[in-house]
Amino acid sequence: VSDRPLRHLAILAEGNFGFHYGKTAVGVIRYGPDPVVAVIDSTKAGGNVSAILPGRDIPIVATLAEALALEPRPDTLLIGIAPTGGRLPDSWRVTILEAIRAGLDVHSGLHTFIGDDPEFAAAAAAAGTAIVDYRRPPDRMETAVGRRHEPGKRVILTVGTDCAIGKMSVALELRAAARAAGRSAAFVPTGQTGMMIDGWGAAVDRLISDFAQGTVEWLVEEGERRGDWVIVEGQGSIDHPAYSSVTLALIHGATPQAMVLVHKPGQVAHDFDHLPDRSFPMAELRPFIDLHERLAGLVAPSKVVAVALNTSLIADEAEARAEIARVEAETGLPCDDPVRFGAAGLWARIEAAVEALPWV
Amino acid sequence: VSDRPLRHLAILAEGNFGFHYGKTAVGVIRYGPDPVVAVIDSTKAGGNVSAILPGRDIPIVATLAEALALEPRPDTLLIGIAPTGGRLPDSWRVTILEAIRAGLDVHSGLHTFIGDDPEFAAAAAAAGTAIVDYRRPPDRMETAVGRRHEPGKRVILTVGTDCAIGKMSVALELRAAARAAGRSAAFVPTGQTGMMIDGWGAAVDRLISDFAQGTVEWLVEEGERRGDWVIVEGQGSIDHPAYSSVTLALIHGATPQAMVLVHKPGQVAHDFDHLPDRSFPMAELRPFIDLHERLAGLVAPSKVVAVALNTSLIADEAEARAEIARVEAETGLPCDDPVRFGAAGLWARIEAAVEALPWV
Repeated sequence: VSDRPLRHLAILAEGNFGFHYGKTAVGVIRYGPDPVVAVIDSTKAGGNVSAILPGRDIPIVATLAEALALEPRPDTLLIGIAPTGGRLPDSWRVTILEAIRAGLDVHSGLHTFIGDDPEFAAAAAAAGTAIVDYRRPPDRMETAVGRRHEPGKRVILTVGTDCAIGKMSVALELRAAARAAGRSAAFVPTGQTGMMIDGWGAAVDRLISDFAQGTVEWLVEEGERRGDWVIVEGQGSIDHPAYSSVTLALIHGATPQAMVLVHKPGQVAHDFDHLPDRSFPMAELRPFIDLHERLAGLVAPSKVVAVALNTSLIADEAEARAEIARVEAETGLPCDDPVRFGAAGLWARIEAAVEALPWV
Repeated sequence: VSDRPLRHLAILAEGNFGFHYGKTAVGVIRYGPDPVVAVIDSTKAGGNVSAILPGRDIPIVATLAEALALEPRPDTLLIGIAPTGGRLPDSWRVTILEAIRAGLDVHSGLHTFIGDDPEFAAAAAAAGTAIVDYRRPPDRMETAVGRRHEPGKRVILTVGTDCAIGKMSVALELRAAARAAGRSAAFVPTGQTGMMIDGWGAAVDRLISDFAQGTVEWLVEEGERRGDWVIVEGQGSIDHPAYSSVTLALIHGATPQAMVLVHKPGQVAHDFDHLPDRSFPMAELRPFIDLHERLAGLVAPSKVVAVALNTSLIADEAEARAEIARVEAETGLPCDDPVRFGAAGLWARIEAAVEALPWV
């Protein structure tokens, strides 16, 4: 997947818009370059995206047919969910087929490749439309070689205390702030939503394990061609029972000089489809930060230089700011919610901290 | 891949027998159930496997034709290398085609699937022979669910200070010792060589990253059906620049109650095809042990209960025993070289240590 022209999107998020598994839809609307014509979710039909994302006046409709009646007419159906295991709900097949037959391209980030489905592939061939599976791995299959960063490049990885808490959003906000400050900055997409937004990258959770670190190393090399400040989207968390190995592939493949830890105050346990009697608590921040530095340092030195809080569970703004101050005191690190309160201030402090690192 | 009848093997290890990339050949000869008729390596032709593995009287021949002239005639060509990236050297294609045309099955653990190669597949179809690609992942694609071990089961994972230092061998020696001591014990193969030896398992380094931990969890579930003491073959090392994520998938997927650390005294840096100017030093044992316990404990409590040394770089037996005593004092843990000096003593100490763990 490489850079591509703009599209008019209808986003399929049936039953999930605004919820956990609909994070792809929200991410693409918030950060993507493509105009979104409609979100399809019959359980919220008649509503508007602005209820969740203020300022985004996008209707939520019940069916694809309703979306197709809008102006401008959508040219692409984007599958806007990322369920555990990445499978396609059977009930969505009809809508996808309808879209293909109506001449729309289909963009998907599911583990189940739409383009490999004989029925979808035949329909797309007949309709002359394209199917893009963002999670399809690159043909390149190489293990890591221990590459060093080019001189003058600064690589920052977002890590987190859980999956789905905002590592991609923080990376995108920091890139925007860096550019606003006049820096040459690039974002390295490592998941399907980031790829949909930035038009390149690889879904690390889909890679063959042996090549995960080598592919991340290669993505960072490309990131260094795109900017001097290279902000790598993190995945999962190092204490996640299902995804920690993907996280470590990012840490050891990207060899970031600095990391930004993303955390969501108020979340009590890992968000994870586990067995009913199992619960995995969230980590304590300070020892968790030390562990990240220790783990990264097994391959290349790295420091957590800031904490980005996702304060979305704290409705009151003053309380959110108080929590930011509390975490700043607890960790001794710059802290803010860059999505809620803007990333300019946090970026300036991150930049200063990175430039002060002895290994930069 | 499941349990299968015995075969008569010719092992292709051209240019690599006895060297690093030929570890599959040595592992299969040492621990596999199948009689090995010949090793094919023209660079060592006329020699005998017994020079490397005392007591194994197996001729090394220059060509497949020579191997086919031996009694009993081989019925299977086993690809006996595991190069970085797992690719098939072009020069071996001719030999593989010859083998198929001579009616032999082909067993391979390479990342490049022999059975997907149109020329090999057509030849096998014409000859009525089978191609088995051990690294082909299972159809099952599930993320980890946080499964608990069945009551009474003890799960032990071998971990290491590097790749290719003997984690599989130690696991197999410990299983043999456990069985000799009257225990119900199973080995869980997580790499192609272990699978060739034990006839089941999955190559974790070939799995899609998102499903690596879930698949290891599932392999351990099967291991628990096969024995009360479940010894899981480890992969890579948590400080390996290319493979650490595979290692963490094993630690968090298997949730072992105990780990055995494998280390090779005398090795000065990671054995790794890196850039010429990069070198990655070996870890210090005691902090490395602590880090394993810390990392494992993020998901489930675990303790390193013993150190298994690979003393193959220490020729003198008394010196090897002195090194074992030194590491035992340094780490405060039971220590031995179970491949060189037998695993019975180390197993007894491991068993006692595991039974004493508060979480067992």
